[in-house]
Amino acid sequence: MGKWRRSERVAVMTKYLLERPNTLVSLNHFAAVFKAAKSSISEDISIMRDVFQKLGLGRIETQAGAGGGLIYHPHVGKQEALAFIDELVHRMADPGRILPGGFLYLTDIIFDARVAQKVGEIFAQRFLELDPQYVVTIETKGIPLALMTARALNRPLVVIRDASRVTEGSAVSLNYVTGSSRQIRAMSLPRRALPMESRVIIIDDFMKAGGTAKGMVDLLSEFKASVLGIGVLVDTGVPEKKLVSGYYSLLRLVEVNEQEKKVVIIPNN
Amino acid sequence: MGKWRRSERVAVMTKYLLERPNTLVSLNHFAAVFKAAKSSISEDISIMRDVFQKLGLGRIETQAGAGGGLIYHPHVGKQEALAFIDELVHRMADPGRILPGGFLYLTDIIFDARVAQKVGEIFAQRFLELDPQYVVTIETKGIPLALMTARALNRPLVVIRDASRVTEGSAVSLNYVTGSSRQIRAMSLPRRALPMESRVIIIDDFMKAGGTAKGMVDLLSEFKASVLGIGVLVDTGVPEKKLVSGYYSLLRLVEVNEQEKKVVIIPNN
Repeated sequence: MGKWRRSERVAVMTKYLLERPNTLVSLNHFAAVFKAAKSSISEDISIMRDVFQKLGLGRIETQAGAGGGLIYHPHVGKQEALAFIDELVHRMADPGRILPGGFLYLTDIIFDARVAQKVGEIFAQRFLELDPQYVVTIETKGIPLALMTARALNRPLVVIRDASRVTEGSAVSLNYVTGSSRQIRAMSLPRRALPMESRVIIIDDFMKAGGTAKGMVDLLSEFKASVLGIGVLVDTGVPEKKLVSGYYSLLRLVEVNEQEKKVVIIPNN
Repeated sequence: MGKWRRSERVAVMTKYLLERPNTLVSLNHFAAVFKAAKSSISEDISIMRDVFQKLGLGRIETQAGAGGGLIYHPHVGKQEALAFIDELVHRMADPGRILPGGFLYLTDIIFDARVAQKVGEIFAQRFLELDPQYVVTIETKGIPLALMTARALNRPLVVIRDASRVTEGSAVSLNYVTGSSRQIRAMSLPRRALPMESRVIIIDDFMKAGGTAKGMVDLLSEFKASVLGIGVLVDTGVPEKKLVSGYYSLLRLVEVNEQEKKVVIIPNN
């Protein structure tokens, strides 16, 4: 294949890193692929690192030493995050989304892969330093956001089910009371899905009173897990007091007025 | 910011494209970002296109003319796909995965974001030419694979639920009989989730007799949708005849022998 140009190496390395967030990649790997000196590869990486930093595209961390290499962390800059959240506000505040009973239809947005990826990167950035081992969610609508958070953190996703399944083996189940509608529901987590005493974060799409989140925390305590943080896409202004504390939310749904066809949703700071 | 080096531009453009699969990106956009002549940007793009092609990293298509630009299509080369599927076979054939009743625990693999992304890219590649407008799945375990397929195709994901929800408005529901265990179940799709007469593909994790897939096809016919293709990660050798035909499957589960602690799973060609 002959000698590689720097721009060719940079294109290939950028793709390789982006597909492996939060993963240590050795310099030797690239040196072997390109049959290049480690010093050339190092210089390529400085270029990538600097331009990513300058434009707020992500953080490329280099680790020195024999086991050295580089790690890419997705990074959503402050301006970019604000613009992204504003765009979500704009989409979500569409009165056409109001459903009978004063509910707001958000499913299409939550299942939009590009939205989910960005939300996941924002959550990952927030919780990276806590060094979670697993990302936990509950079916169904939390899954896209949690999957993309798990992708950005390079950690396994664990999905709590609403009933135990024969295809998942023995499970720990819990009945819980939803915080807002006071209904009794069940949630279940297969024993083999999560080792005891794991460090986890919880990701979900929506929090009203926090009954589901509290149920998840309770269920996780049966696994002696440490819940390091909770991230939700949208919470509600009412009730003000939730059943869990210290969670992180990107958006707040203040009001859905069915009569006046008005939705008030704001960024959460 | 001064003049950009080619390798800097290539790093930034590679990231931008990878985050927007199957999306037309205009050359003018990059020319403006880098304050560079379109001819320089064109040359950057040729370098990226050629090296991606040479290494089987994806297809960068350029479109000439006023509305011109470029489109990135993820591409999993034949060798890479075979190696990836072999790795899945290896992971799935672990006898430790056998559950009581002869079921095989695959949840952790399906919820592995990196696996889901690669499977999604393989499905996207397979179905791209059919030009689907929507990717459809059914909760729960199909979601990661379908989301990543939708990401690679840049199409919305539509998730059929197992019951209708107040947060999703009026829905079309259907009772169906699972093909293998002959149980009656329900599935439901909100009216607003899918416009009438859409062109769709169906993605799911597993197919035994195909009862669920047939149910999805039937439900989609209520929306007058054209089902262009069906992709599943794993199908089973038995029953040989499925309730739907012409689906595409990556792996075949031939046997789970609880007594002998043996799993036979093979790539599907």
